[in-house]
This record gives sequence, C-alpha cells and structure tokens, in this order.
Amino acid sequence: MKIYKYPDNSEVEKIIKRPIQDIDDIREKVIPIINSVVDKGDKALIDFTKKFDGVELQSLKVDDSEFKEAELKISQELKDAIEIASQNIYQFHSSQKLDVKKITVSEGIICWRKSVPIERVGLYIPGGTSPLFSSLLMLGIPAKIAGCKEIIVTTPPLKNGKVSPYILYTANVLGITNVYKVGGAQAIAAMAKGTDSIPKVDKIFGPGNQWVTAAKQYVNSIGTAIDMPAGPSEVLVIADESADPKFVATDLLSQAEHGSDSQVILITTSNDLINSVQLEIESFTKLLPRKEFIQNSLSNSMIILVDTIDDAMSISNKYAPEHLILSVNNAEVIAENVINAGSVFLGNYSPESAGDYASGTNHTLPTNGYASVYSGVSLDSFMKNITFQKLTKSGLASIGNTIELMAESEGLDAHKLAVSIRMEKSDD
Amino acid sequence: MKIYKYPDNSEVEKIIKRPIQDIDDIREKVIPIINSVVDKGDKALIDFTKKFDGVELQSLKVDDSEFKEAELKISQELKDAIEIASQNIYQFHSSQKLDVKKITVSEGIICWRKSVPIERVGLYIPGGTSPLFSSLLMLGIPAKIAGCKEIIVTTPPLKNGKVSPYILYTANVLGITNVYKVGGAQAIAAMAKGTDSIPKVDKIFGPGNQWVTAAKQYVNSIGTAIDMPAGPSEVLVIADESADPKFVATDLLSQAEHGSDSQVILITTSNDLINSVQLEIESFTKLLPRKEFIQNSLSNSMIILVDTIDDAMSISNKYAPEHLILSVNNAEVIAENVINAGSVFLGNYSPESAGDYASGTNHTLPTNGYASVYSGVSLDSFMKNITFQKLTKSGLASIGNTIELMAESEGLDAHKLAVSIRMEKSDD
Repeated sequence: MKIYKYPDNSEVEKIIKRPIQDIDDIREKVIPIINSVVDKGDKALIDFTKKFDGVELQSLKVDDSEFKEAELKISQELKDAIEIASQNIYQFHSSQKLDVKKITVSEGIICWRKSVPIERVGLYIPGGTSPLFSSLLMLGIPAKIAGCKEIIVTTPPLKNGKVSPYILYTANVLGITNVYKVGGAQAIAAMAKGTDSIPKVDKIFGPGNQWVTAAKQYVNSIGTAIDMPAGPSEVLVIADESADPKFVATDLLSQAEHGSDSQVILITTSNDLINSVQLEIESFTKLLPRKEFIQNSLSNSMIILVDTIDDAMSISNKYAPEHLILSVNNAEVIAENVINAGSVFLGNYSPESAGDYASGTNHTLPTNGYASVYSGVSLDSFMKNITFQKLTKSGLASIGNTIELMAESEGLDAHKLAVSIRMEKSDD
Repeated sequence: MKIYKYPDNSEVEKIIKRPIQDIDDIREKVIPIINSVVDKGDKALIDFTKKFDGVELQSLKVDDSEFKEAELKISQELKDAIEIASQNIYQFHSSQKLDVKKITVSEGIICWRKSVPIERVGLYIPGGTSPLFSSLLMLGIPAKIAGCKEIIVTTPPLKNGKVSPYILYTANVLGITNVYKVGGAQAIAAMAKGTDSIPKVDKIFGPGNQWVTAAKQYVNSIGTAIDMPAGPSEVLVIADESADPKFVATDLLSQAEHGSDSQVILITTSNDLINSVQLEIESFTKLLPRKEFIQNSLSNSMIILVDTIDDAMSISNKYAPEHLILSVNNAEVIAENVINAGSVFLGNYSPESAGDYASGTNHTLPTNGYASVYSGVSLDSFMKNITFQKLTKSGLASIGNTIELMAESEGLDAHKLAVSIRMEKSDD
C-alpha cells in the first residue's frame, strides 16, 4: 500500500483519482452480441453459452427438478443463515415504503404521489466460482416487497450445465421460478429485448464483469432502465487511535479480495496505526485463499495520514466511496458530516461484511464516485412515483389567472385556453 | 386525427407504437461539439454561440445589471403569478422530505437512510421564442429545498445577446445568481465537464431540443447523471359521456401546440364525443397562434373508441403516457387502476395546464414510454439516499454466524474473517 503523510489539497486531488475504466473496447465487442440476440433469439443464447461458458444447453429455463435437487445440496445451517439474512433485509426494505400523503396545496387543489411497482424486472446474478446468492437476496427481496409482477433471474450455468444450487435455493425461497441459464452480455440482451424463452423486462439489476457492465450501459442507452452505472468495488476506512488494527486490516482485506481492481483506502489520524495495520494485513493475507486478488488490489491502494478526523472526512467526501467505515470515537457525530458515500458503517463492530450479507441494508451500491449523485438499491429502485391531482372548479379558479398569465408569457395559448374555457362555463 | 373503433389487442399494440426517435445522427454531430468544449473551454462556447445563435458574446455570465434590467420588464401581475405558482410548487415538493427513520432490525443492529443533497446541479432552460421560466421554477425550487450547494443555469441568449427577462427574473426570485448565456449541446458539455467560467456539475436537469437531448445522453454515458431520458411530450385523455367536449379539445390542443412531434391520444367510451371533440378542435385551432405545430401533431394523433373505461385504462397502461387526464365519472376510483403514467389529472377541472404551471406538481415527466419505469422530477431527484448502520458487539454476534456461513459459501473468506476476528476479541 502506498503511504501519504499530510498531503495538501492538490496532492489529495491526485491521490484519490480513480484509475479510468476504459470499457469502450468491450462496448465494441458487446454490441454484436446484443444484435445477434435480437436477431436470432434463443439460438444465439445457446450458441454464446457454448462458446463462452463451454456448456451445451437443451433448454435455457431451469426446471422444477433442478430446484428440488438444489434444495438437497444446501445444509440446514446455511438455510437458517439465509432465513435470518432475509428477515433483516425484508425488515429494513419494508420500512422504506412511502405512504400516500394527499396534500391540500390550497382549497380545492389536492396533489399526491403514489409509488407503483415497475411491472417487469430482470436480475442478473453472477455464477461460477463466486455464486452471489447474497445479491439475489438484495435484489429479489425489495422486488417482492415492491410487488413487481414479473421477476426473472439470469445467471451463467456451471460447467455441468446446471445453475449453482446456492442461487437456485435462494430463488426458490424468494418464490422466483423464472431462472434462466445464461450469463454475460447475451443475458443482458435477452432481458432487454426478450426472446422466445426469456421475457423482456423494463429494468435490469445486478452486478457483473465488464462485459455485463458494458452491455447494461448499452441497453440503457437504447431504452432499458438499469439499477446504476458500475465500477470496481471500494472501501474507505477512517480510523483514529481507538480503532483495532486487526479489525481495520480485515475490513480492508474484505474489499481487496473482491478483485484485482478493488479500491482500498485507509485514512487515519494515528501514525502508529499505519504500521500495525500493515503488519496485520501481511499476516492475515497468508491465511486467505484469494491472495492474488488481494496482492494486486493492495498494490494500488493507499494509506493517508491526516491531522484531524475532519480532514479525513473532507477527503472521503471528495472521493465518495461505495463503502465508508468509521472506526472512530463518536462515530455517530462524525457520521453527520458524510456528504458523499454509498453505505456507512459506524464504530468497531459494524464491519462491511454485516451490510454485505445480513444487517438489512442493501449491498448494491454506487461505485466509481457515483455515490455523490446516485443512491444504492432500495425499495424505490423497484417502483416509480406517479403524481396525481384533483382540482375543484373553485380550486382551478383560484390559480386560473396565474396559469393564464404564465402560459401567455411562454407563448402557449392553448394551455391558457384550457383554463379560460373552464372558467367560462356556467355552474351546472 | 385517426379514429379507431373497438380495436382488438393486436391492433392496439400497433396503434400505440410511438414513432422511433432516431437521434443517432444527431449524436454523431454532438460528440465533436462536446469534445471541442472539453478542449477549448470558454472559447469554444463563445464560438458555438456565434455560429448557432448568431450572437457574439464578450462574457458568458449574466451580470447584476442584467438581472436588474429584467426585473423592470416583468409586470407586477406576472410577478404575483410567479409568486403563487412558486408557493404551490414549494409546498408540494417540501412535503416530499423523508424523515430519518432509525430501524432496530434486531437488538444491537440499527440501520437507517438519510437523504443528502447532491452538491452541484445544472439546470438547462430553453430560451428563444418559448422562454420556459416555468421549467426553471420546476427545477430550481426542489433544488433549493434539497439544499444543493451549487445551482447553475444555462440558457441560450436572445438575438440581442441577453437572456429572456422571464428567465432572469425567475432565477433571481429563486436566488440563483449563476446564469450563463449558452445553449444547445455546448451548454450541456460545459456543465458536464466545466470550463473557466462555468463550473462542472454532478447532475444535469432540464428540457431541450434533440441536440440537448443527444448531448445529455452522451454525457450521461461518460459519467454525468441526468434527470431522465427524454422524448416528445404526450397527453392521453380518457373520457366518458360526462366529459365536456370543449375541455377535452383544449386539453388535446395544449399538448399539440408543444411541437410537431407531440403525441396526443383520446380514448373514449362515447361515440358522440368523437365528433363533438373534433368539431371543437377545428374551431379552437383557428384562434390559436401555433397552428402549424397543432396541425402537424394532430395529423399523427388518434381517437380510440372502446367499450369500457377498463379497456381504456388497459390501453393507457400499455402506452404509459407522460400526462394522463381522466375526464370520467368517479375519476378517483378509476385512478386506482393507473399502473404506468407520469402525472394524472382527475376530473373535469384538472387540466394539464394546472400541473404545467401552478398546482404544485412537477411538470418534468417521463415521456416515450419511460413512465413505466421512471418517476418525474421530485425532491428526490436532487438528493441521494445514504444508508448507515451501527452494530453493537452483541448485535454483530447475533448475526455473526449467518455472515460467516454466507461469506464462506460465496468463497469470500476475508469477509468471514472480518466477523470472526471481532467475535474473538475479549470484552474490553
């Protein structure tokens, strides 16, 4: 890890610049894949699955027997864990429901908003060596609470032509029966455009590699909504002398193990912590299987020593991390100063892993600085708000002149006429 | 207007297909403009303003004297109108504030969300013959309520090198002093990337022509957030025998006058209404200045006769109109069945003009079928939600095993370790 001590503002700007994710090349490669799916439908999906995943499929849809088989492979312990995590995620996301509040703007003018589920959503879940069934919980649970009518899942098949039992078991628990064995850009194309087997959806969610990301961006540019733009995962830890070096080290390692491009930053007011955290990282890394990812991502990562926690927070707000861990005294007070972050973890006993799996918050979060403007996935992501208004004749009369004058000033005379003609009508 | 009587489902699918907005050509033209602004900054903006608007500017920023001059040009009547509209918009958007709700997911696990303003927002306001100062109210008021730190406006200059006094007066009332005389794709580029005069923003809002739309899409694809994808404006009116043909006609005309590509649809259960509305449209059109737009857009518009209001609503939900007017008996009951729409107007005295200007709802709404998945602009559009969590040691212990098992199943051992190491620590 690179170490910077007391950098000034202009140095900070340079230090926290993220590496540019150039996916233009990949974009050029995914467009023909998408077009091929549009032209040839299921046949293209089966061909690409043979080519990219090395699997020859007879049928794309997971059938009942596979769901049953998956259930037998999951231990009771893990089933219980999934149940506990689900309950917490369900509880936190349910609390995000918006009540309809009818606002009497003035007498005879009532306006309100209503959240209505998006009808058809598609969830992309990575498979292979890291079958992210936790992401299926994070997306499937709010989709269910929202009341989306059609929820489908695409996920790449394993070499044996089956879907990871972790993913199938989780889908089954959620009551999602439309699971399709297809991954990569071709899966995104199928959900965006529809094929004979796979229904077209209105919005696509879920993490993926650069092919999936590029495909999501492309289908977004031609009309399908997506959860958010994506980049490599990130954590920023702010720590003072009250932090435990072992805890900080394992939090940094949790992020580093995601992939070689993971971004890991520690900002601290304690010079001692710099050495102790580095020592802990070194010794823990020896115990961990994903050493290569960890070493690659740590080689691009950094520790910044600052004077005050305010300085640390100021750098963090400029960086806008996906995950922000506050291993500091008075974390709740410090947390009030967070302006840009995806999800914030307070104190020594709130590791990122808690939010990744089971505390209840969502782990689908904005990366790459997008936390300055985008929210993580929440119940809202599966709904849209529709506004309604009801005016009485006297309500309209009370703002009739206002509308007429403004419409006239904008040169929109029919807008004015729609009011005038109503004002002229004699009461029935 | 084309008339369809009792179409079956497959006919409906064809009838409600929108014309494809092919802006690929414009995209190709917009990219060099954006690149030029990135390279040459203010100089490019001044050159493009000369080329496209025929105006030679010395300085891009509107100065104090121009604000003062504008104020003198606005009648007291219009000032009062703007004041009334502002109060209503302020009231409805203020009601959208989310309280922070701390949720105790289980003992020792507290999670919450907090809405935090987006720091820097840019509002694009069309000028010229239709100076849309109402759009400035619709964007500026929620930006102010949200508490965005930097709110800037770009708008093309008039032929005299000044900005429309309507727009300047409105900006001044809102307390927005950073107004820049630049329009088109070059304005979007300046806000997305920043120049010496114009600060870079995090999110760009506002309506515009196809150049502006293409530029917003392009900068969105390279990292700047935008309010929503855009297309031509639309209204769909559902009317039964209780509707007043004059009211329906002026509502349809209000939409038709926006532009030649405006989409106007009437769905009715009353055969009589078809003729009477057409007659009213004919006679009103004679009185209206924007005849050319009206005639062009009506020539592509349609009236659909259906058996029941349920049939009408089913077609409307498939179409997902930007504006939906329910000129029917029991409009509030019928409104419960709306699944896809931007904003809904209930009964005979709620014309679209009310929401366009002064009832309090926002008029920046999803078009082109995007109402099935996107919301209109609201207070939320100027904020992001950050999640927070605080776990106690015993709180973490209660889900520690759950996290460990799930992380292990996903092959993420450092995630597991971050919990195990905390559980091992003896109490201080």
